[in-house]
Amino acid sequence: MNGPVAGIADEIVMKLDEAMAASGLDALLATSPENVAWVSGAAPPSQKTVRSRLAAAILPRGGNGEVVAIALEGPVVRTQSRLPELRLYEEFVEDPVLVFADSLARRGLGDAAIGVEETHLSHADYEKLARALPDARLVRADERFEELRMVKTPAEIALIRDIGAAADRIAKEVFEHFGAGSTEREIANFVAERYAEAGGDGLTMLVVGSGPRSAAVNAPPTGRALELGDVLRLDIIGTKGRYHSDVARTAVVGAPTDEVRRVYDLLVGVHHRCLEALRPGALTSDVYAIYRAAMDDAGLPPYHFVGHGLGITLHEGPFVNALTEIRLEEGMVLCIEPLTLLEGRFGVQIEDELLITVDGYEPFSEVGDLPRMAG
Amino acid sequence: MNGPVAGIADEIVMKLDEAMAASGLDALLATSPENVAWVSGAAPPSQKTVRSRLAAAILPRGGNGEVVAIALEGPVVRTQSRLPELRLYEEFVEDPVLVFADSLARRGLGDAAIGVEETHLSHADYEKLARALPDARLVRADERFEELRMVKTPAEIALIRDIGAAADRIAKEVFEHFGAGSTEREIANFVAERYAEAGGDGLTMLVVGSGPRSAAVNAPPTGRALELGDVLRLDIIGTKGRYHSDVARTAVVGAPTDEVRRVYDLLVGVHHRCLEALRPGALTSDVYAIYRAAMDDAGLPPYHFVGHGLGITLHEGPFVNALTEIRLEEGMVLCIEPLTLLEGRFGVQIEDELLITVDGYEPFSEVGDLPRMAG
Repeated sequence: MNGPVAGIADEIVMKLDEAMAASGLDALLATSPENVAWVSGAAPPSQKTVRSRLAAAILPRGGNGEVVAIALEGPVVRTQSRLPELRLYEEFVEDPVLVFADSLARRGLGDAAIGVEETHLSHADYEKLARALPDARLVRADERFEELRMVKTPAEIALIRDIGAAADRIAKEVFEHFGAGSTEREIANFVAERYAEAGGDGLTMLVVGSGPRSAAVNAPPTGRALELGDVLRLDIIGTKGRYHSDVARTAVVGAPTDEVRRVYDLLVGVHHRCLEALRPGALTSDVYAIYRAAMDDAGLPPYHFVGHGLGITLHEGPFVNALTEIRLEEGMVLCIEPLTLLEGRFGVQIEDELLITVDGYEPFSEVGDLPRMAG
Repeated sequence: MNGPVAGIADEIVMKLDEAMAASGLDALLATSPENVAWVSGAAPPSQKTVRSRLAAAILPRGGNGEVVAIALEGPVVRTQSRLPELRLYEEFVEDPVLVFADSLARRGLGDAAIGVEETHLSHADYEKLARALPDARLVRADERFEELRMVKTPAEIALIRDIGAAADRIAKEVFEHFGAGSTEREIANFVAERYAEAGGDGLTMLVVGSGPRSAAVNAPPTGRALELGDVLRLDIIGTKGRYHSDVARTAVVGAPTDEVRRVYDLLVGVHHRCLEALRPGALTSDVYAIYRAAMDDAGLPPYHFVGHGLGITLHEGPFVNALTEIRLEEGMVLCIEPLTLLEGRFGVQIEDELLITVDGYEPFSEVGDLPRMAG
């Protein structure tokens, strides 16, 4: 668990305040784990695992926000939250939605325009909230949150850069320390330990896929031992201080076959061309088109996206696929990850994190030549 | 990933068919991860991590059900699902809720009474479904699912017993293999390996709390090394074939202090008395009262529940707390877990799994005398 990070709160609260003013909202009620964490810094551990253990960040226009969380996790939430108020509810005794309504009413927001998350709040909870605040106007704020979260604040950028650079270093160490005979699980344990040493909260979805498993979309580590000639695909996904890392590398045990070499070099080239296209004003669908054309030319199976925003959630805007047209802006943080999976044989993925800058991008991690592990 | 288990589907589908007949429903649309898994056996990995990647199990009265899942995870879902039909949707191209509606309409259920999960479906998705099926009647089925899931089928019982007994064995091995100087993370790695060997899908929330950390509610493993005199609290929570294990043990490194000995023996006694009260017809609130009175008499901090049902989810009905009055029935599977956390000092928890039988209970795991680890 990490404590509050100075600077983030003010920047985000300020941004939300401006957005409320622009859209005529009096308050925001964030309830999704990502927006509670983004607005307040708090991440009550069980809100993701037990659906009834709702949490909220309440932000009235003009500031002075409040986190509402389950009493059990009060001590953790207290150290995490950057908002001035904390209200705890007793599981089974109090209904969290009615506690949210009561907090809003007590703040004189019983008849206000309140931004809510319609794609997160369940239908039952939405109806309960509406009944408890009959004079309030509930306004869908989902897209507003998504948009505002795309451009990161300087403090957010520093956090993502820090754990992204650590993931890059850890991948390099894996390729130096392990080789034929090592198991995927041994590699996973090593990554987990190094990630914790780097201050990470934990790995949320680690991919360690060797041999034919390198071509599986989700390949959690198994007891499989690496063999000479294996391709190893490693994707280090975890969080530190609520922000994600997502760096993927592909290596080979011993010497690569001509085919592996060719596919790897092709993807490194595609990766480079995608990166070169990044700058404020560029369209995400145009970046996807570069990847897609290269895969089609080479007769390799393409993936349905080649990148995504990175932050409090693993996949967030801007999405880099054929169907989403988002203009890049300075301050966005993205992963660019050209990938091809040759089912039953091998998969290659190269994924780096970067920041959109005023005239291009700044990498947080940087891929090199095909790493070789001891045979 | 585990494949389908023979026998489960028919029993559960039959139960749901009877429930639909009794409540006048023509079909069920399960969308929560737990009910999709319960009805169909399918657990598309990313439905829990990416909220927009919805999945559903559609069950018309009379059988012939269907799973709807994201195309990316088609290969996994195909091996897991016990329902005859599988429909896949393309992320970003198709809206999963509109795909559910289309599947229902194609089955002639466009004007039917359809049971939905109002506490799971988001408000936005519920409204979208209602608009797509303007002649259908959407009926809240949440409580119905919960009730039906409480009494397990024989095949479900066999699955839970199997992984629960494995968790019990693994805890014993931990206390034999580790001692002063071992780190919590070493213990966690050992548990993860043994759990995988037992066929487990993975640990979803492992507690390894040593010394003062044994008193923290959620204590994921850290690099802390065990010291002489430490209390160690271990809670082995994971899944195998979609069903949970939840067995907690408390041990001491070297010899216990008089206080630790006294608190441990007291909790073992409370645990025994709670178990003795279990039989069909007993009220869960009466079982909680046994624990609560003992803690109050001893001046120890009580927890707000002493047990819960166990199955596809970690915490499900019947809840054993002061406020929930559920009459136990044959076939329910519960955890009974008397617990006291002396903040900053030590915590003791004893948690066993059991089945309610016709005249009492059958344990899946059984606690013994205070385990001592090498000093």
